[in-house]
Amino acid sequence: MIRAGIVGGTGYTGVELLRILALHPKVDVRVVTSRSDAGQRVDALYPSLRGFIDVVFSLPESELLANCDVVFFATPNGTAMQMAKALLERGVKVIDLSADFRLKDVSEWELWYGMTHASPDLVPEAVYGLPEINRSAIKSARLIACPGCYPTSVQLGFLPLLEKGLIDVNHLIADVKSGVSGAGRKAELATLMSETGESFKAYSASGHRHLPEIMQGLNLVSGHSIQLTFVPHLTPMIRGIHATLYSRLSNSKIGLDELQSLYEARYAHEQFVDVLPVKSHPDTRNVRGSNKCQIALHRPQGANTVVVLSVIDNLVKGAAGQAVQNMNLMFGLSEDEGLKTVALYP
Amino acid sequence: MIRAGIVGGTGYTGVELLRILALHPKVDVRVVTSRSDAGQRVDALYPSLRGFIDVVFSLPESELLANCDVVFFATPNGTAMQMAKALLERGVKVIDLSADFRLKDVSEWELWYGMTHASPDLVPEAVYGLPEINRSAIKSARLIACPGCYPTSVQLGFLPLLEKGLIDVNHLIADVKSGVSGAGRKAELATLMSETGESFKAYSASGHRHLPEIMQGLNLVSGHSIQLTFVPHLTPMIRGIHATLYSRLSNSKIGLDELQSLYEARYAHEQFVDVLPVKSHPDTRNVRGSNKCQIALHRPQGANTVVVLSVIDNLVKGAAGQAVQNMNLMFGLSEDEGLKTVALYP
Amino acid sequence: MIRAGIVGGTGYTGVELLRILALHPKVDVRVVTSRSDAGQRVDALYPSLRGFIDVVFSLPESELLANCDVVFFATPNGTAMQMAKALLERGVKVIDLSADFRLKDVSEWELWYGMTHASPDLVPEAVYGLPEINRSAIKSARLIACPGCYPTSVQLGFLPLLEKGLIDVNHLIADVKSGVSGAGRKAELATLMSETGESFKAYSASGHRHLPEIMQGLNLVSGHSIQLTFVPHLTPMIRGIHATLYSRLSNSKIGLDELQSLYEARYAHEQFVDVLPVKSHPDTRNVRGSNKCQIALHRPQGANTVVVLSVIDNLVKGAAGQAVQNMNLMFGLSEDEGLKTVALYP
Amino acid sequence: MIRAGIVGGTGYTGVELLRILALHPKVDVRVVTSRSDAGQRVDALYPSLRGFIDVVFSLPESELLANCDVVFFATPNGTAMQMAKALLERGVKVIDLSADFRLKDVSEWELWYGMTHASPDLVPEAVYGLPEINRSAIKSARLIACPGCYPTSVQLGFLPLLEKGLIDVNHLIADVKSGVSGAGRKAELATLMSETGESFKAYSASGHRHLPEIMQGLNLVSGHSIQLTFVPHLTPMIRGIHATLYSRLSNSKIGLDELQSLYEARYAHEQFVDVLPVKSHPDTRNVRGSNKCQIALHRPQGANTVVVLSVIDNLVKGAAGQAVQNMNLMFGLSEDEGLKTVALYP
Repeated sequence: MIRAGIVGGTGYTGVELLRILALHPKVDVRVVTSRSDAGQRVDALYPSLRGFIDVVFSLPESELLANCDVVFFATPNGTAMQMAKALLERGVKVIDLSADFRLKDVSEWELWYGMTHASPDLVPEAVYGLPEINRSAIKSARLIACPGCYPTSVQLGFLPLLEKGLIDVNHLIADVKSGVSGAGRKAELATLMSETGESFKAYSASGHRHLPEIMQGLNLVSGHSIQLTFVPHLTPMIRGIHATLYSRLSNSKIGLDELQSLYEARYAHEQFVDVLPVKSHPDTRNVRGSNKCQIALHRPQGANTVVVLSVIDNLVKGAAGQAVQNMNLMFGLSEDEGLKTVALYP
Repeated sequence: MIRAGIVGGTGYTGVELLRILALHPKVDVRVVTSRSDAGQRVDALYPSLRGFIDVVFSLPESELLANCDVVFFATPNGTAMQMAKALLERGVKVIDLSADFRLKDVSEWELWYGMTHASPDLVPEAVYGLPEINRSAIKSARLIACPGCYPTSVQLGFLPLLEKGLIDVNHLIADVKSGVSGAGRKAELATLMSETGESFKAYSASGHRHLPEIMQGLNLVSGHSIQLTFVPHLTPMIRGIHATLYSRLSNSKIGLDELQSLYEARYAHEQFVDVLPVKSHPDTRNVRGSNKCQIALHRPQGANTVVVLSVIDNLVKGAAGQAVQNMNLMFGLSEDEGLKTVALYP
Repeated sequence: MIRAGIVGGTGYTGVELLRILALHPKVDVRVVTSRSDAGQRVDALYPSLRGFIDVVFSLPESELLANCDVVFFATPNGTAMQMAKALLERGVKVIDLSADFRLKDVSEWELWYGMTHASPDLVPEAVYGLPEINRSAIKSARLIACPGCYPTSVQLGFLPLLEKGLIDVNHLIADVKSGVSGAGRKAELATLMSETGESFKAYSASGHRHLPEIMQGLNLVSGHSIQLTFVPHLTPMIRGIHATLYSRLSNSKIGLDELQSLYEARYAHEQFVDVLPVKSHPDTRNVRGSNKCQIALHRPQGANTVVVLSVIDNLVKGAAGQAVQNMNLMFGLSEDEGLKTVALYP
Repeated sequence: MIRAGIVGGTGYTGVELLRILALHPKVDVRVVTSRSDAGQRVDALYPSLRGFIDVVFSLPESELLANCDVVFFATPNGTAMQMAKALLERGVKVIDLSADFRLKDVSEWELWYGMTHASPDLVPEAVYGLPEINRSAIKSARLIACPGCYPTSVQLGFLPLLEKGLIDVNHLIADVKSGVSGAGRKAELATLMSETGESFKAYSASGHRHLPEIMQGLNLVSGHSIQLTFVPHLTPMIRGIHATLYSRLSNSKIGLDELQSLYEARYAHEQFVDVLPVKSHPDTRNVRGSNKCQIALHRPQGANTVVVLSVIDNLVKGAAGQAVQNMNLMFGLSEDEGLKTVALYP
């Protein structure tokens, strides 16, 4: 059994990790830390876990965590970069769900995240945990930087087009809609039900932290410096991300059926990326609670704008599920161990 | 492997059965019927099942179903009573999720359901599938009448009090709130999102079909003819039932702690009934997608009215999950096979 | 024009007062205070008010407020009791939407609200602002204690039965469901959309602050010391309260039609209480944004339990609308001035 | 008083017209037709209108309607085109909220709407009822084609940029999100709460009927043949449209502040179009129930893509409110008569 620890077990990505790991046949959750709730039973805070997790929140102390085989950081940005080194030195694998190790350009990271990076020396080693791109590097990694939720949905959507160089990289648009759980489990006015229920709005339209992460990923697969307009929106639902991606074909003779074949081939062996029949409309409910990304292609009016629709559950494929997928790869397990779940519909 | 068939696979209880059975290690779903969608792939209608269910909807024909070991009826009322006999005669076990076999008094059934019963002779044999009361009968049954969603939440909540004769059976009140999926997957004005979203109302306050079913069950456990006021309500959410139950203690000297101990003892060996700490407030989200019933007790102001709060997921413990629990018992499997799931929070 | 001030203009009852008063033909909103947002334009915080309210938040200083004809307190409990006296002495009428002056028994108030009352001498003078009971006292009052949202829905529902002495006052039950805006505009985990969306739960089942207020009101109209079990619930919607009230007829010979006539007669001249046809099911959406209370009666199975269904918008008839109704009475205006609005359906 | 009739009073645009007209000081609603509900009181179907509308649904007969000064068609497509001529000949003004008279190219209309146009001779006369473009024509019109909800939000958002020729008309993108009330009050599976709640999806991404209407409008104001990719989405809320519009500046030297000034100047005298401070994020809740369009501008990362955010209430500025605004203009009333309402927040 893999001994697992979770630092920051009281946020939504933390409790989602617990939901998944509680039923993972090869994992034993040993440590769940929380500064605010140390000493309290985990299932007292989360009654959904009664009968599944028999652990008490502990303080985030290195000794406890060092006895684990793997430690997940489900913390706010700025924590993992301070604790990762000590754990790695003790031979513990680290999977960070925060943004600390996602950007290779440390100065850009510091600009967007507004703090000095505590472990810039670890940044080069950190593997960006998107298995559909980095599977082999993940298998041998000690330190994983799990992708953000928006970046996962956008990169998986654009990937085949960029790998094949089929679109104009200077005019990419990602209009993305997220459920409110993406904002985390924090006492804030902006995500009260009375503020977000029955309403829809964009936010951070002039610049969102996930922009440099998406651009870094798209630059790598395309081999070019792409230009992207990224506008995130808040949707009155709890879970789910829907990315609507617009790009212009470089060669207008490529038909929609060819594009469909390309996507199907690219993801044929990816069990968590599901290309729907052409002209489908993926619905976030169909991946709710599951680790899948569902994708569909359109080419409206036969013009040369391709529209890619890409949906994930922000807490699963966009966070905790992807983290477990990474863990499975790192420990030589079947990639879908603990992740064979059907979305909760309706 | 148990060969399973589902008659009426296009409703919410049908697709929920598919969600559960798709991952059940001992079940192979062979037949899923639908008059309207025969010939279409099941996962074309329900993209959440892509990769999990490789079946095409078929017409509800006896021959196909007769090759199954068990057939679930997830049909509107009035169908199972017409098809059950032929299947039973062919040695197929039948689990009916509709109301056809729930009431032992056929004339009362005909009154509430507005049709003539097609198989009154099977009614005596049918076992009411509430394992917490009827476990041993279920194990040897051929024909199960799965309880309704409201009746499950109300009976499990009142059960210990009535078994011990602690309350005045003449003045029971069940104020129960349900998510809209309980109304089924039918094209109806009343359950449009624009009609039910952001709003709350009672319905059928002067009489609901689940009333005689609840009363039959409570009469049996109490040994008396109980009197119950039952008011169902429609809540702007998809899944979940919350029963708020009011009754008066016959003996006002019994303390809340004693009642708590009684409930804990009664359900100590029931893995799907979870008694929360005294004065808790169970939340439907904590059982969403799971087969659990969570219960908590209150005795406001120390007066002699006991308030029992009882929550289930109407589609799981209130329908498909309970049906699978019954199947596990009927086939000698572990009672929680295929039902070990953590609720989807948030 | 009546010069109005609002103390605590950044909560939901405050902004709802602004929504109503902005269009009130006889009111000029002069002062809106907020410690946290002083200096900022009101419509910068609330873009829904752009073009309607041309005021800047000010600090809650007596001088500014003393120039008003009426001051509304839309503050947390504990503020109005400290500022009311000075305003009254300057001849300003005070309408308090908080709980400070609702309970006549100061020691009970201090028990439930956990603080020492700052102006116990004003308590006897304060008029409980439920116009359907206290209209004439309201007209001549200087100081109004606006009823809470739950107490409004419950009292209007029970009123005719208690006034006529038709029910057993020892066994009243109020099972009440509220939208989340009732919890106020505060940064709290418990009312995040991810916590309250798609879920339903009871809270404070063992004792809620509105209990003594309801009991005080029901005692007064019945002339007896009533016994009430009151269980509030949180519903996944923003606005609306639905009270489901249970009581037992003292005389089982009274028919439902007689009760219906009684209610219709009692409220015939109340323009904000609307008795629906017998056996109706009022829906909170039908009073959303309006100052109406809609009520319907049931007597399930002809037994002697009467079920009263009563709905209001918690922010309007349960708070700001009722406050304006009181103001209209105090200033000799038509009672519905500024309150002639149709509920927002769908 | 203007005598008004409404044909098709049982849909959401019909009941929204009733909500607005019930309080309009210059209008008397005389006739409300419904084939299915003829003979029933309007307020029996819509309890929100109790006390405001004292009318019985009648059959849609010409004689009744001919006695009105104005008749609104809140019908499915295909009805107004059959009844309009007879009313116009009787001197009745007609305001059509359906699509029958929106497209000037009849053959294109027939292509998208799949039926033969019954009154192609009236099409040239019909005035497209977007007051911000066609105010003077509306004032003297007999027949108004009210814009669709999507077209209203998109046209108002793009208008200033196109009028000034500032953007590349070959690459416009409109990513638009609508609440479910836009789908109408019809018994359909797709808009059940269980289907649309807690989920988000695009629909008609390969072609939606509002596309030719939007293009017709944008072509007119730009004087060019524009190219537009339009993707509508269904959002889990009842009311509201949020358009996110992307276009590329022809001249990259134009700064965001200049664009902001342009928008403010263009809409300075439009009381129902409200340009928010630069880089704001309009929220659909802030126009819920009101006739306003709120707009904000962004230019992410200073690149030459302009992002315009535009929100309306689809049932008000996107339908019934705009219809009343047109009526006010046609009858020489103040343009905001009956439309001075503050959005319902929260």
